Amino acid sequence: MNKVIEKTTIIGKRVTKLDAPDKATARTRYINDLVLPRMLYAKILRTDRVHAKILSIDTSGARALAGVHAVITASDAPDGKIGVLRDNPPLKGDKVRCIRDEIAAVAADTEEICDAALRLIKVEYEDLPTVFDCTEALSEGAPIIDEDRPDNIAMQQYFEHGDIGSAEDDSDFVVEGEYNVHYVTHCNMGVSCSLADYDMDGRVTIYTQTQYPFNVKMDIAPSLGAHPGDVRIIQPPIGGAFGSKLDVYPYEPICAILAKKTRRPVKLIFSREEEFVASPTRQPVEFNIRAGMKKDGTLTFRDVDCLLNNGGYTSWGATTPYVSMRTVTSHYTVPNVRYRARAVYTNNPFAGSFRGYGNVQATWAIETHMDRMAEVAGLDPIAFRIKNANYPGEITPQAANLGRVDHVGCILQAADKSDFLDKWHDCKARQAENTRYKRGIGIATSLHNAGGAKIHKSDGCGTMLKMDDYARVTVITGASEIGQGSDTVIAQFVAEELGVPMRDITIINNDSATSPWDVGVHASRTTYIAGNSAKRVARKARERILRAAASYSNVMMENLDLRAGYVVQADDGVVIMPLDKILRQMHFAGEDAELVMETDYYEPPSEPEDENHVGDMSAAYSHAAHVAEIVVDTKLGTIKVEKVWSAQDVGRVVNLTGLEGQIEGGIAFGLGYALSEDLKIVEGKVANPSFRDYHVMTAPQIPEFDLTFLETDDGEGPAGAKGIAELPTIVIAPAIGNALYNATGIRIHHPPMTPEKVARAIAESNAAQDNAKGRTDERG
Amino acid sequence: MNKVIEKTTIIGKRVTKLDAPDKATARTRYINDLVLPRMLYAKILRTDRVHAKILSIDTSGARALAGVHAVITASDAPDGKIGVLRDNPPLKGDKVRCIRDEIAAVAADTEEICDAALRLIKVEYEDLPTVFDCTEALSEGAPIIDEDRPDNIAMQQYFEHGDIGSAEDDSDFVVEGEYNVHYVTHCNMGVSCSLADYDMDGRVTIYTQTQYPFNVKMDIAPSLGAHPGDVRIIQPPIGGAFGSKLDVYPYEPICAILAKKTRRPVKLIFSREEEFVASPTRQPVEFNIRAGMKKDGTLTFRDVDCLLNNGGYTSWGATTPYVSMRTVTSHYTVPNVRYRARAVYTNNPFAGSFRGYGNVQATWAIETHMDRMAEVAGLDPIAFRIKNANYPGEITPQAANLGRVDHVGCILQAADKSDFLDKWHDCKARQAENTRYKRGIGIATSLHNAGGAKIHKSDGCGTMLKMDDYARVTVITGASEIGQGSDTVIAQFVAEELGVPMRDITIINNDSATSPWDVGVHASRTTYIAGNSAKRVARKARERILRAAASYSNVMMENLDLRAGYVVQADDGVVIMPLDKILRQMHFAGEDAELVMETDYYEPPSEPEDENHVGDMSAAYSHAAHVAEIVVDTKLGTIKVEKVWSAQDVGRVVNLTGLEGQIEGGIAFGLGYALSEDLKIVEGKVANPSFRDYHVMTAPQIPEFDLTFLETDDGEGPAGAKGIAELPTIVIAPAIGNALYNATGIRIHHPPMTPEKVARAIAESNAAQDNAKGRTDERG
Repeated sequence: MNKVIEKTTIIGKRVTKLDAPDKATARTRYINDLVLPRMLYAKILRTDRVHAKILSIDTSGARALAGVHAVITASDAPDGKIGVLRDNPPLKGDKVRCIRDEIAAVAADTEEICDAALRLIKVEYEDLPTVFDCTEALSEGAPIIDEDRPDNIAMQQYFEHGDIGSAEDDSDFVVEGEYNVHYVTHCNMGVSCSLADYDMDGRVTIYTQTQYPFNVKMDIAPSLGAHPGDVRIIQPPIGGAFGSKLDVYPYEPICAILAKKTRRPVKLIFSREEEFVASPTRQPVEFNIRAGMKKDGTLTFRDVDCLLNNGGYTSWGATTPYVSMRTVTSHYTVPNVRYRARAVYTNNPFAGSFRGYGNVQATWAIETHMDRMAEVAGLDPIAFRIKNANYPGEITPQAANLGRVDHVGCILQAADKSDFLDKWHDCKARQAENTRYKRGIGIATSLHNAGGAKIHKSDGCGTMLKMDDYARVTVITGASEIGQGSDTVIAQFVAEELGVPMRDITIINNDSATSPWDVGVHASRTTYIAGNSAKRVARKARERILRAAASYSNVMMENLDLRAGYVVQADDGVVIMPLDKILRQMHFAGEDAELVMETDYYEPPSEPEDENHVGDMSAAYSHAAHVAEIVVDTKLGTIKVEKVWSAQDVGRVVNLTGLEGQIEGGIAFGLGYALSEDLKIVEGKVANPSFRDYHVMTAPQIPEFDLTFLETDDGEGPAGAKGIAELPTIVIAPAIGNALYNATGIRIHHPPMTPEKVARAIAESNAAQDNAKGRTDERG
Repeated sequence: MNKVIEKTTIIGKRVTKLDAPDKATARTRYINDLVLPRMLYAKILRTDRVHAKILSIDTSGARALAGVHAVITASDAPDGKIGVLRDNPPLKGDKVRCIRDEIAAVAADTEEICDAALRLIKVEYEDLPTVFDCTEALSEGAPIIDEDRPDNIAMQQYFEHGDIGSAEDDSDFVVEGEYNVHYVTHCNMGVSCSLADYDMDGRVTIYTQTQYPFNVKMDIAPSLGAHPGDVRIIQPPIGGAFGSKLDVYPYEPICAILAKKTRRPVKLIFSREEEFVASPTRQPVEFNIRAGMKKDGTLTFRDVDCLLNNGGYTSWGATTPYVSMRTVTSHYTVPNVRYRARAVYTNNPFAGSFRGYGNVQATWAIETHMDRMAEVAGLDPIAFRIKNANYPGEITPQAANLGRVDHVGCILQAADKSDFLDKWHDCKARQAENTRYKRGIGIATSLHNAGGAKIHKSDGCGTMLKMDDYARVTVITGASEIGQGSDTVIAQFVAEELGVPMRDITIINNDSATSPWDVGVHASRTTYIAGNSAKRVARKARERILRAAASYSNVMMENLDLRAGYVVQADDGVVIMPLDKILRQMHFAGEDAELVMETDYYEPPSEPEDENHVGDMSAAYSHAAHVAEIVVDTKLGTIKVEKVWSAQDVGRVVNLTGLEGQIEGGIAFGLGYALSEDLKIVEGKVANPSFRDYHVMTAPQIPEFDLTFLETDDGEGPAGAKGIAELPTIVIAPAIGNALYNATGIRIHHPPMTPEKVARAIAESNAAQDNAKGRTDERG
């Protein structure tokens, strides 16, 4: 009897991440493990001032130390600056603008010699007046941080749609609110590290943790006085990135300049304290929101103004308002919107990009505000949100076509599964009870791009694929694996097309010389865009193989399929020949010999925003709704998150295990943002640069999860999938804030909701009630 | 005025080898420099017997030593054997067959601990009768080396064409001769080294110095009990290979087995003495030649029988008669030929493949014999060779179509430039003079395949190419750079097609997971076959770019060219746009976006030999002629080679610098073979395992060179080029032997022509002449 293989699919299954076994068994070779022949180590001397003129730098002592190979200052560096506005010289020669500013750097035989050399460098400063607050920095006569921008505005955005004035006139209710969010930092387990190696012809290879190996060439080149084509970027396995590696930071050119000067490979690794002080932050934002509605709760307008504390230099943090803007204008159907954002220079540490990218901040503000509006409208949180929910095919004020979204479905799934309304009403009714522990439930939802974001000239990804004589597949992708599981998902799409087991697929990436272009890991784009390219390249290989198999087998190509390592008849699954056999026949066909090698470049059908911020910049959009059930210890102010229900539109589940991991991980990050993480900047200095004083969520604090995946089957996404990575981080914090209000009647506008802050708010509220009661008593 | 760029070419120019700067400045990262996390070191315990039963192996002491992680013997190894006949178990369990046989191996924290552990292993043997001579090994009752082949014949070849009997009857002269060649070893500057690393799913990555990364997967897999698809081969930069790395040797599976057992990466490096004892040899061959001719010198037949001393196991050395056969049957036009070869097991070290691959040995025999025949015919060496030279389009007895060869041209160029005939007659005339220093001149020629050799099912090479936004080119080739300069030549072909500078091209190779298939570095094939594939893939990229440029510029594609980084009008060289600009336009074209990524697989139009050894197995053939002028110190027996004239049919010069380097290097190797290199095997043991006692040519011994390149413009070769690597090694030794005869009348049949051997032959000859003279005197 003929062997028969049924059709199966690997899409939507539980798949072990390809990098998991190596990471679990300490086999992964991080950048820290890399050693090149004759390699030196480097360290940076940072300033301890936040705004000061540099009068002199004396490096003579350091230069004289045995084992030191180079000491560099600004005078050794090319003129080119880094950062989004090219306002950041890797080494500071004239003045320092914030703590951690780079003054000098040393390359030596060991890190210990580097440290000793740094202690021998003498710097004379003249302190300058400082400013740390946005409003103060914008006021007349404020100290100027960047001389090229004397108004202290690093970047600003403005958008208007409809008629706010008329809309306000037509509104039955207008609700105002101020929502300020705070500093957090990435806390990657792998500290920043770079290894640079110049060849004899002026080309440099930089091993670094970047998330965007192809564009980093362009961004770093001026600071090296190099042509971008002469920069090769290799991205070894990364101990976390989350947006922190989407820009060039001073240590990277510094490391390369030292390598060039010493003509030896140089490696530079941050200490943990340095990582807290000198890696990019998610910056504070002050949101001022006014929003109107009809009596029935229908939104009429939103008018938002926000100030971002940019710090001393401009990295991608200043561009996050582009994403916040979309939340303000498009999350829920709002006919009239106005948005203004200004990123303001101060003497604080500067802000970079961060998972959720502006949407974490905006969704905190919008979803807290929405909860307040629901109450004003006399609607429960579910009814109010459904009334205003986005709908499939909606064209937003910025001209995003939301396509196959299911905002209502997300809200209903999260609400139904959590028994939201019963609990919400119950908890609300018990608010007044005099109990220490109070239970509450809250909901929030979010909208995010889920098909990339065309913020560069291309949002595409290239892929090359080859198969060998044993039906082993190599995929050379532009996509970067930064721990998010992209290699695994890419391999799944290839496995699906070619009918090969996952273990027979090798993903090659992370070397700009080897891989075709990709814009980088950001905007939840990799599954969607690299996945599409991988699927397309595998489809081409599949067709080539089936064409050959048809010729060898005399079965029509249309009735052939690839399953489990075999060519089979598609209709009945009867095996025709092993896959490796047809590949060898193709290879060994003499003058007709062919190897299966295919290429593909996928550019999503999105468009850049125009100068008025109008444009459908993502190929897909999606929503998530989170419900959080919490218990508040009203005495200690602690919030215990008991369970989180997440309903997210994922388009299509690709790797169930990876999807759960990303959503749970994202929620854990969001919980830290909501409850405990707080990078304390005091007079421009980081007051808590350690895990002892900066509190990330730890395992015992993680709640029970109930995850629901809505499969809306995106028309363009690979197998219908959408990008999913950022939403979970974005939406959890306001759900908890709303639950806190449900439990206690306390509304906190400014996260994190730390025990101290919660306890104080409850105490103040109780005191106010007591006073009110007292007054009543007096009146009575 | 418009910028104009003239058409130029990089083909035939002097190009610095791409790997030269790194090698000259100690930046190259050889396998020895590789360190993986948690890596262990390994050493092998070798036998000191040449034929013995293994009675017991006691590893308990070694296992107990601190720092030892594993000790393995045959019982720890899978059953699979390695070698061409799969006759070589990586670890020997039953008996040892030659010196260096692997008994046990240790993995430990350091090499020092490995050494200490090896000293603690106790082995008991029972010696067996030995045999070292081929004829003895073939005789009745000889000790049996390999129980599966009791006749001691490892491999044999037989070919016959025409009618030897009739030809002999028709011959005016028949000349016989016996020519025995000796053991030499490779003497790579980089000693053998392997690093193996298993992943958690049973796949192994082996970093090794192989010349054939794709087929080594198949060859090594059984000895690891693995599927070939689960073996990934990475070939780091190599300190010389020259054919020595065309097989799997016991240390490679041993290293991998230790890695599997310890679950850690393991590195194994030979000592220099080990390299002399345990790396493959070029084996001794005993040639018996009978050849006939007409009075006018026209060859009538050749009848050759040869015995190869195979040693204890069978590597590729046993297959070298396939190449020797071609020299016997096809070098010079010979109508009737017979060839028989037998590789005979002995208790000597075993023979591998070696630059020149059987042709070094055969050409020594044939060209010494030809020189003798010329004398018998009464013709000078030039006239005799020209009379019998191969001609263009000749179809040889084995059905090779010699195509565009120029045998006569090579002979005439070498002879003319060296003023051969005048010198030859003059030296001959002075032979009888009673002077200590005698001058001589000799010539030899050779025929070799110059377009690959289809000895596997495919002789092809795959290439992938991508270009980035800066017009930098990456070429992912199957070809292996082993120091021969292939990367440079490949880059030249790409530079030529794309009009980009050499420094803008990065070659990626040497990782079987990344690169498309290639059969490996052998048979002087890489420039021809990988070069063709590189040229073709670049041509595809060129066409894609010109198509886009035509569309953007409204100039017809046929009138566009790529020169010096620009798109220009082909007819007048007027610049249209920079190359990087058109690439960015293509990339940023929105929905029409394309990256330049191309693939190609080139299979040469050659055919495998059939079972009768008939087949045109190379896509091209070529000749070289060497003239050597020497001075012999008749007292000390030293031969000083003053100058070598080489005339070689190279098809077309590609890299003039690299070509000169390969030819001069090849001649230097050939000089060592002719004059000094001699691996002394005494009772199966290597008597001179060091550079003190084994003499390679050193710089002061290298003669003046006069190189002539005949450009026959091969129709199929890239830019007309042919493979050139092996010919120079092949042809120099008999030229020197013939010069020695011209100088002294002494004919040495068995190289090397060491001072001892030459002085003794001269002394014996003088004594014979004295005796003869004495007799004459007596008679007189």
